[in-house]
Amino acid sequence: MTTIRHASKPLDYTRGVIDLSHGSGGRAMAQLISELFAKEFANEFLAQGNDQAILPASAGRLALATDSFVVSPLFFPGGNIGELAVNGTVNDLAMGGARPLHLTASFIIEEGFPLADLRHIVIAMAHAASNAELSIVAGDTKVVERGKADGLFICTTGLGSVPAGCNLSGKAIRPGDQILLSGTIGDHGVAIMGCRANLGLSTQIISDTAALHGLVTVMIETGPSLRCMRDPTRGGLAVTLNELANQSGVGMLIYEDRIPIKEEVAAACEILGLDPLYVANEGKLIAICAPEDAPELLAAMRSHPRGQLATIIGEVCSDPRSFVRMQTAFGGTRVVDWLAGVQLPRIC
Amino acid sequence: MTTIRHASKPLDYTRGVIDLSHGSGGRAMAQLISELFAKEFANEFLAQGNDQAILPASAGRLALATDSFVVSPLFFPGGNIGELAVNGTVNDLAMGGARPLHLTASFIIEEGFPLADLRHIVIAMAHAASNAELSIVAGDTKVVERGKADGLFICTTGLGSVPAGCNLSGKAIRPGDQILLSGTIGDHGVAIMGCRANLGLSTQIISDTAALHGLVTVMIETGPSLRCMRDPTRGGLAVTLNELANQSGVGMLIYEDRIPIKEEVAAACEILGLDPLYVANEGKLIAICAPEDAPELLAAMRSHPRGQLATIIGEVCSDPRSFVRMQTAFGGTRVVDWLAGVQLPRIC
Repeated sequence: MTTIRHASKPLDYTRGVIDLSHGSGGRAMAQLISELFAKEFANEFLAQGNDQAILPASAGRLALATDSFVVSPLFFPGGNIGELAVNGTVNDLAMGGARPLHLTASFIIEEGFPLADLRHIVIAMAHAASNAELSIVAGDTKVVERGKADGLFICTTGLGSVPAGCNLSGKAIRPGDQILLSGTIGDHGVAIMGCRANLGLSTQIISDTAALHGLVTVMIETGPSLRCMRDPTRGGLAVTLNELANQSGVGMLIYEDRIPIKEEVAAACEILGLDPLYVANEGKLIAICAPEDAPELLAAMRSHPRGQLATIIGEVCSDPRSFVRMQTAFGGTRVVDWLAGVQLPRIC
Repeated sequence: MTTIRHASKPLDYTRGVIDLSHGSGGRAMAQLISELFAKEFANEFLAQGNDQAILPASAGRLALATDSFVVSPLFFPGGNIGELAVNGTVNDLAMGGARPLHLTASFIIEEGFPLADLRHIVIAMAHAASNAELSIVAGDTKVVERGKADGLFICTTGLGSVPAGCNLSGKAIRPGDQILLSGTIGDHGVAIMGCRANLGLSTQIISDTAALHGLVTVMIETGPSLRCMRDPTRGGLAVTLNELANQSGVGMLIYEDRIPIKEEVAAACEILGLDPLYVANEGKLIAICAPEDAPELLAAMRSHPRGQLATIIGEVCSDPRSFVRMQTAFGGTRVVDWLAGVQLPRIC
């Protein structure tokens, strides 16, 4: 935020690394902020250069969402922690029907982290923010000693504005409602796990990390029978549906053969012993709406690039136990439970 | 946010520790959220239970500030990382004249972290939020493997509302302006360093961590000649004054004998080889105002419990080099430079 009085050597993006002085509030931190963060995120609010960004008044209700990102590895097929940190928080806002306005970004960096990698990630964040039509207006940088973090963690918080009349909630779901899914499941989680396991698959699986605010805009316009939306990240489709069923005190029945999944993702899940229902997505959403408006909502979703493969995967039913059940491809029915034993740590 | 369908054993605050399942999106995470975070932070916004908090409209301009906290040790005389994380972000909002409204809190927890410690910290956050008259409306929990973090990091982001007519900025300072300091310097940094060094001092030095929004409210009421405020955290008084001088393109002259410092803090600085001008504070502020209104501002500050020891420590002058100079107790003058070599890592 502050330009430095005395000229010093510019940041060395070839061999330079983060050291403790970059987090200590002095000259090195000021240089990192001005030459990297302020340069790449440039906007009038960040340029205020104070401890807080002062933002214009916003009519109507506000939405606030926060997420920390600890994904490992930091770079993966289809993206890196930077765009994930922007898209993830944009999506948390969008799931409430909010238009994303501003983002803050806070960095916890391990001593020794390459400046080249940090720049790469910051540029990815700037692009993702620009794609989501928002500005990164405030930030913070902390550096911890070698061995006290794992390269880089990023926390983003988003502020959005909620359109009048939009009242989406996981508590608004009723029996008879239809469950829509915007596309294939499991891409992000399998991309990450594939990286870690070094599967050597012939087809590289790419993370689906993407901002969903544009898709959400066309969906909101279909009207008030849209009950809620949620992006099935950690815990995947299964946990997200269980959360929603539980919040509204309803049951759900989904149909296995209607859930889109890429062949290579299904194959990788087989190899890795993962159930794709529990694998994280970073560019997909679940929407629940009144039955009479489901065809219109589905058409709206399919009209948008991020919803071309949207399908109605099931329906809401009465169930005091709030069970999510799935009719399998073979015709049987099984309960799709909360995630209990399996863990996929650091997927986002 | 979500209550859990199947009753399971309650969290064990005696011997329980965080494991990877607490961050994986499943049942253990839902339990941690409902039994700890949602219980201690309880408010209507958090109770919405969605991926984002929907907040009422707020008239006027908004302020947004974010900070990550990586302080080591997590518990120190006078507080812990929890209240520091709330007060620090409250203060970043208050320095812009904003009334703090809402906070988000994101936790990065190392596998094996004791649940008892986490509860202790969360309760401290809830108290600090209550003292600052704001609610913690959204959160996130990530768990990383043992050895990939250092116990606990917390990122908080604050949303505030800016009163009409309030336009504080580090760029608004003019020659002749007076520089006010709200109290003693160095308390927080020395409390932390004292902990780490195990100094065995006869007097325990206590962190000054505190929310300054109340003090700020009485200061704002003195009128429009208040140019700016800033809390001298990382880098201490010296770096904060350099930042401000640089932002406004002015010089500053401060007087060593007017800067309040506790005897035991000065003594500890001697032992530790620290210059108290560069040591972090967490409950103090610098204010700069037009000379004609300085006496009134000083009186307002002294009328508040957090500003009883407030003093005018110096004045702003013309200086194209933006030097901050200090007249020492011996009558000489020296340049108080940016922090360059010295580092006190993980002070906040």
